[in-house]
Amino acid sequence: MNQHQPMISKFVIEASEAESMAQSLNLPSVLHLLPHLVRSAQSLARPPISNFHVAAVGLGSDGRVFIGVNLEFPGVPLHHSVHAEQFLLTNLALHRCPCLLALAVSAAPCAHCRQFFQELRHSSTLQILITDQVKTQNFETKPPNFNPLSKILPNPFGPYDLLDQETPLLLEQHNNRLDLVPQTDELINEISRNFCNGNDNFGKLSNGNCRNYEKNETLLREEALEAANNSHAPYSGCPSGVALMDCEGKVYGGSYVESAAYNPSLGPLQAALVAYVARGGGDYERIVSAVLVEKEVAKVKQEDTVRLLLKAVSPKCEFRVFHCQSPGLY
Amino acid sequence: MNQHQPMISKFVIEASEAESMAQSLNLPSVLHLLPHLVRSAQSLARPPISNFHVAAVGLGSDGRVFIGVNLEFPGVPLHHSVHAEQFLLTNLALHRCPCLLALAVSAAPCAHCRQFFQELRHSSTLQILITDQVKTQNFETKPPNFNPLSKILPNPFGPYDLLDQETPLLLEQHNNRLDLVPQTDELINEISRNFCNGNDNFGKLSNGNCRNYEKNETLLREEALEAANNSHAPYSGCPSGVALMDCEGKVYGGSYVESAAYNPSLGPLQAALVAYVARGGGDYERIVSAVLVEKEVAKVKQEDTVRLLLKAVSPKCEFRVFHCQSPGLY
Ligand SMILES: [Zn+2]
Ligand SMILES: [Zn+2]
Repeated sequence: MNQHQPMISKFVIEASEAESMAQSLNLPSVLHLLPHLVRSAQSLARPPISNFHVAAVGLGSDGRVFIGVNLEFPGVPLHHSVHAEQFLLTNLALHRCPCLLALAVSAAPCAHCRQFFQELRHSSTLQILITDQVKTQNFETKPPNFNPLSKILPNPFGPYDLLDQETPLLLEQHNNRLDLVPQTDELINEISRNFCNGNDNFGKLSNGNCRNYEKNETLLREEALEAANNSHAPYSGCPSGVALMDCEGKVYGGSYVESAAYNPSLGPLQAALVAYVARGGGDYERIVSAVLVEKEVAKVKQEDTVRLLLKAVSPKCEFRVFHCQSPGLY
Repeated sequence: MNQHQPMISKFVIEASEAESMAQSLNLPSVLHLLPHLVRSAQSLARPPISNFHVAAVGLGSDGRVFIGVNLEFPGVPLHHSVHAEQFLLTNLALHRCPCLLALAVSAAPCAHCRQFFQELRHSSTLQILITDQVKTQNFETKPPNFNPLSKILPNPFGPYDLLDQETPLLLEQHNNRLDLVPQTDELINEISRNFCNGNDNFGKLSNGNCRNYEKNETLLREEALEAANNSHAPYSGCPSGVALMDCEGKVYGGSYVESAAYNPSLGPLQAALVAYVARGGGDYERIVSAVLVEKEVAKVKQEDTVRLLLKAVSPKCEFRVFHCQSPGLY
């Protein structure tokens, strides 16, 4: 890399800032800037198993630049890992950016990620540049060599093999119209009254009184419900969402994202952990409370899996589950 | 499909039988036979979530024909699913077939599977035919249109990005040289003596006496250890194996298989369930006992995940874990 390599320490760069960065490097456009940010972004990855740092730097249709990095979680199977490309798409969803135009990525995207990209409308035209395959790292002197996704994943299996054209795809607006199951609400008041007499992390967040407990609980529950309502789960019909709270009381929501090919699906806790990392969260142990919202009767249930991963990343974290239903079903 | 479509009800067809089938259909070779078996093999799939039946019919280098189908497990996240292509490779491993030459598959392989295929030596030349993309299903009248894997997954990420050329790949001989941790052995005798006084599935398998309990326990433990020794886990160094016993006392072993891309890795319980289905096992509830062998201190631990999936497929199944280590480490 050359000396013009900019240093970045955040996961979203505003359009105006990205323009300025491109100009200061004498680059004709923000598209040309993407490969310049990859090396620096790799340092934001958290891959304690492989030590293989991957970064994907993407350009949104609104001009913002988004960063994605890989996350690995020791102690649990490898399918819990989040790839840089999945982080990138989750980051766009988090910031309500409707479309990813192009990305530069440090290594050839694995086929699991090529499959995950299929959840995007017009995925075949997504432009990709693989920086470790560019012979000279002198991106100024020649135009960056982007290629469409279809070139590295011809004849794909994807959403259109299973869904109609009208079903919203990833990054498109979802409204799953879920409400919390009413019985749950009554139960919560009961539980929260009981818990306020004992020890719990919700209480410890502030001064331990009942009102703060209930406020935090409500906040997390609402955030997790909203995440479930934004969840992309057209294949199973089992949307879900997770909300995390750190020891400062900051809340991070994540929506479950399904893949037409099933296995590359991104769990709701993974999505919330992406939000945590992207919004500057530190060690995972700072996460003190988690709420999952999902359907009680579902072909795809996340509860036990969220508990399992949570135990690995933040063993002392509290965890509660609330059930939701489509209106009219109760 | 035409009237010549053969019916198949098993997962391995011996070389001589495959030759006869090809001849009786006036086909020039067993390679031409593969697409003819796909439709019939699809009925062997177990996809209760998607109802999307996939079959992959492969030709081994020893002339045998192997069948793979997809398995889905309601109640747990979709990453537990086994794709037909993964089943096929696990089936070859189970029957010690050293090389897959070609396969016919009912739908375009998803990219998760294209990635999984990368674990094979010379994967780029693997020949693939997608039967639902053949315009006429009249496979006799024209030569089947196989294409190399590299055509549907150019510029892949794979084992050679992370390993040297000497590391054994999938289907190649593995010997992880693992032994059970000695303390475990002593503990087993203790446990088994205690359990023989109470109720347990091991005892119920036969006449409930201690000798049968110990015999079954030893059998499963040895099978799981052997599976762990055959496990392909070069990326994490955390091999593992599962052995299952059904209510008739039949034993099914499965080795954990890792993918260079991490997430497409196949868990040891999944591999054992493939063995169970491929060897004619019926309902999963007939599985009464399971043993996992893995390292006690490991970056990738399977224990909680195996327990979670086992609870979903056979809730009353017993489950025990034994730890292993490389010799010289204790
Ligand atoms: Zn990937
Ligand atoms: Zn697949």
